[in-house]
Amino acid sequence: MNVQQRLQELGISVTAPPPPVAAFVLSVQVERMLYVSGHIARRDGKPWPGRLGETMTTADGKEAARAVVIDLLGTLQGATGDLSRIHRIVKLLVLVNSAPDFTEQHVVANGASELLQQIFGERGVHARSAVGVAQLPLGACVEIELIAEVVP
Amino acid sequence: MNVQQRLQELGISVTAPPPPVAAFVLSVQVERMLYVSGHIARRDGKPWPGRLGETMTTADGKEAARAVVIDLLGTLQGATGDLSRIHRIVKLLVLVNSAPDFTEQHVVANGASELLQQIFGERGVHARSAVGVAQLPLGACVEIELIAEVVP
Amino acid sequence: MNVQQRLQELGISVTAPPPPVAAFVLSVQVERMLYVSGHIARRDGKPWPGRLGETMTTADGKEAARAVVIDLLGTLQGATGDLSRIHRIVKLLVLVNSAPDFTEQHVVANGASELLQQIFGERGVHARSAVGVAQLPLGACVEIELIAEVVP
Repeated sequence: MNVQQRLQELGISVTAPPPPVAAFVLSVQVERMLYVSGHIARRDGKPWPGRLGETMTTADGKEAARAVVIDLLGTLQGATGDLSRIHRIVKLLVLVNSAPDFTEQHVVANGASELLQQIFGERGVHARSAVGVAQLPLGACVEIELIAEVVP
Repeated sequence: MNVQQRLQELGISVTAPPPPVAAFVLSVQVERMLYVSGHIARRDGKPWPGRLGETMTTADGKEAARAVVIDLLGTLQGATGDLSRIHRIVKLLVLVNSAPDFTEQHVVANGASELLQQIFGERGVHARSAVGVAQLPLGACVEIELIAEVVP
Repeated sequence: MNVQQRLQELGISVTAPPPPVAAFVLSVQVERMLYVSGHIARRDGKPWPGRLGETMTTADGKEAARAVVIDLLGTLQGATGDLSRIHRIVKLLVLVNSAPDFTEQHVVANGASELLQQIFGERGVHARSAVGVAQLPLGACVEIELIAEVVP
């Protein structure tokens, strides 16, 4: 099954976002490597605020990480023109807005990792780091940075 | 206008720093990719301490992020011998020493991104992540890690 | 002296770990670059909990960072089949579970950097960032992510 079929089966619709009105871009490609900017979690198109272990449960956080991946797919689609050109998801940096005693960042990160595996199969299985941070832009609960390998 | 002209126009003087007396180096190059160590903010040659949302305003933080870029330029100059060999600024990781309720890490990061764009033009526009962290080495207010692509 | 001799001299035994039972992997290689997942500190095979500046001293943290490197070597061994195929340690991201007033993340990170230099010599000297974070998976005191260049 290919990527488009998997997305359809999961009921996920992917849209390339507009470029940011800023001094940075959503991704930069060097040869085969595509470096994608940190994307914060959004819900209904607006920043999804929250702190794990304080205002959000681990299950909420997992859902937010999954939502970030859907936005990252939009950026990958915009950068490559076609998600089937993604040869491999290489690495994620999963940043979780965390209360001092919240220690399940890896479970939150699974919300991102599992969706990437569902969509890309073996090519979606990546290296990753999960980290608890003090705060994120606009108070977002989760931010994810990604590196992908693109078919030349 | 080239990079040297832009630096002169902005009144910025760039000096390659001495290598750290430590078990790490300021940058490592693999083929075209130059990986630059996290640089902490300095003022008058000393670490620039502070926490955004506590002892520093967003405007202060933006200024600190701009100062880090000037030091990063010194490292890029030392690594390449000539800043015109920088083909592209690929990615920044902007780490902001943040109070629990400070949520403008992206505005602080603009202090870095905007200067890179002013100096390198289109080649200075990068992917990036902005993150609020609990603390930084020597109490610094901002630390930035950078990846650049060098002309072969 | 080669890598195996150095390890023997240091009394370090390196074992490739089993793959994680998860939607991610310990490392992904693209051409010469090996991206290694964040590894948390372990002691006696279990997560090593703690927060620098609160429940652990800088010396403890340095020891923990050293222990992470031994686990990272296991992953490098598993990925390459032979540590002598590591051409260069390129970059570390050293994440230190930090109390708000702990500012010696760079000293903690030296525990990792110094061991890599002892084992790999010049090839072990890397770029790095050291950061104080709010919390880490399973309450670990230190987590390290690594990029290495592998001999083709």
